Amino acid sequence: MGARASLADIAAEAGVSVSTVSRIANGALDRASPATVEKVQRLIAERGFRPNPVGRSLRGGESQLVAMLAPNLDNPAMAAIAASTEAALRDAGTVMILCDTHDRPDLQDEYLRAMRSRFVEGFVVVSAVASPELEAAVGRGDPIVFVNRRSPYGGLAFVGIDNRKAGADAADHLLARGVRRPAAIHPAELSSTIRDRVEGFVERFEAQAPGVRVRVVAGAGANHLDAGYAAAGALGPSEEWPDGVLCPSDLMAYGLYRAALERGVRVPGDCEPVGIDDNALNAWIAPWLSSVRVPYPAFGPRIVECLRSLRQGEPAGEILLPHALVRR
Amino acid sequence: MGARASLADIAAEAGVSVSTVSRIANGALDRASPATVEKVQRLIAERGFRPNPVGRSLRGGESQLVAMLAPNLDNPAMAAIAASTEAALRDAGTVMILCDTHDRPDLQDEYLRAMRSRFVEGFVVVSAVASPELEAAVGRGDPIVFVNRRSPYGGLAFVGIDNRKAGADAADHLLARGVRRPAAIHPAELSSTIRDRVEGFVERFEAQAPGVRVRVVAGAGANHLDAGYAAAGALGPSEEWPDGVLCPSDLMAYGLYRAALERGVRVPGDCEPVGIDDNALNAWIAPWLSSVRVPYPAFGPRIVECLRSLRQGEPAGEILLPHALVRR
Repeated sequence: MGARASLADIAAEAGVSVSTVSRIANGALDRASPATVEKVQRLIAERGFRPNPVGRSLRGGESQLVAMLAPNLDNPAMAAIAASTEAALRDAGTVMILCDTHDRPDLQDEYLRAMRSRFVEGFVVVSAVASPELEAAVGRGDPIVFVNRRSPYGGLAFVGIDNRKAGADAADHLLARGVRRPAAIHPAELSSTIRDRVEGFVERFEAQAPGVRVRVVAGAGANHLDAGYAAAGALGPSEEWPDGVLCPSDLMAYGLYRAALERGVRVPGDCEPVGIDDNALNAWIAPWLSSVRVPYPAFGPRIVECLRSLRQGEPAGEILLPHALVRR
Repeated sequence: MGARASLADIAAEAGVSVSTVSRIANGALDRASPATVEKVQRLIAERGFRPNPVGRSLRGGESQLVAMLAPNLDNPAMAAIAASTEAALRDAGTVMILCDTHDRPDLQDEYLRAMRSRFVEGFVVVSAVASPELEAAVGRGDPIVFVNRRSPYGGLAFVGIDNRKAGADAADHLLARGVRRPAAIHPAELSSTIRDRVEGFVERFEAQAPGVRVRVVAGAGANHLDAGYAAAGALGPSEEWPDGVLCPSDLMAYGLYRAALERGVRVPGDCEPVGIDDNALNAWIAPWLSSVRVPYPAFGPRIVECLRSLRQGEPAGEILLPHALVRR
């Protein structure tokens, strides 16, 4: 980027709006006072001027397009990954095309085919599912970064967290809170990510509390909210509820919360949940939820680095970013 | 779409996975049993077979690309609009490129320029801000559908709700709950959408409760969470708080909720908020929030209709979708 100024820098220094600077930079001089035009033109001349990299590369015909395939845009964790990746790609002069696969292998395949045959230079696949076209793309060596969930077809570029350790840290948290009748819930369809979180939790809890067995309860549902609600519903009447529960995603914890309210189980008084994600909204409306924070805002820059390595023919490997338990 | 079957239809009828049907349809016959191959091939022959429209149009080189410009992907309302628009465009054989403008005129302009000069055939601009490039695009007659917030440059294609009526309905709700010391909060930077909601609320409340004045309090912040928190913080000590508050977006209500918790104001016991959006998560983790439901899942199909009209040179006009108050 160097020392050149952005539109926003110049606007701040001149005390005018970004739109005004943009107009003047583009030669539209008739909507600002002569004094403003003079000041902005002088600042642009003095500071140099750095156009937005997306606009520059696209106007110059050098655009790169990258496709992100994600299972559900209205999951806050997906939205956070999409937002950080979009920003990092934009900084690199690249435009992101966001495709919602709804966690369906057939849609994942259609988008992979469509994006590849047409224009994109790389893929970011969040929470991939196994599908024939994905297997073919991996076989061809297409540049693909897997996020959250590893490739179902072997060890490839991956950005995520250490899911077993996240589960273990959640166990330590509940142990420190005095939980002695623990449970873990999970969706009936078990991804490798969720399985690692649950196994890490169970293993650590049972190792630290000899004689204690962790109940593991599955729930069916089209999404983690429904699955969490269904699993919590299978915990039995309120007096049989555990005093602490691993919810391997925050959405599952929200599902458990609703089931608890309906049964008069106080959360966290009677039952202490611990989530994984630490969605940004928790601080505002889920102050009852301790959660392992996944550093989604840090994902974007690392995903872009991985794509760059892959496109240069270098291996990208696995990037495990540090998580941290947020206690509430 | 006609009567042809989709991958999923054939998979359901054959009792196999969608991947299996996809492989067989694509000629990969070696991973299923001969009986399965025979059954799936027979069903495809009998039913006809409808490939996914995105894949079909893109493979055929007829792809349409539409750009959605939205201010913040991690606002649940934006994510809901993006998800419904993506699905409706996909059904129409069109791919959506999602651009996060961060509510900044300079980024909105860069994306408008970049997308237009390169490939897109239409724009969906959610919560537009005034900017020179937008004004130019409107002047040229580019196909643009405005969502949530009308064009700052005159009466153009628009999909949203009747915001004044949404505010008035929120007033009726608080009146019915016995509120007599009402307030409305809003962000310091006031968009036309938010202004209409607040004005509709104030007008109706004061008309129905003669002698009552609605306090209107602004809060500054980079987003509606922060703005709601700041505005609630300006309501004074807990004994001066209103007994009911219009929050013109659910995010503002979340901000107020946190400020209330910090002051020991019980929500809804001491202070009854009413939001606008009815985010999908409210039913799970904000059971204290009555809210005017904006039918975001219905936005996508109407946005696609508007784009189709515009591209055929027909006026698209304004589409106001029905909202409904959800009482909790």
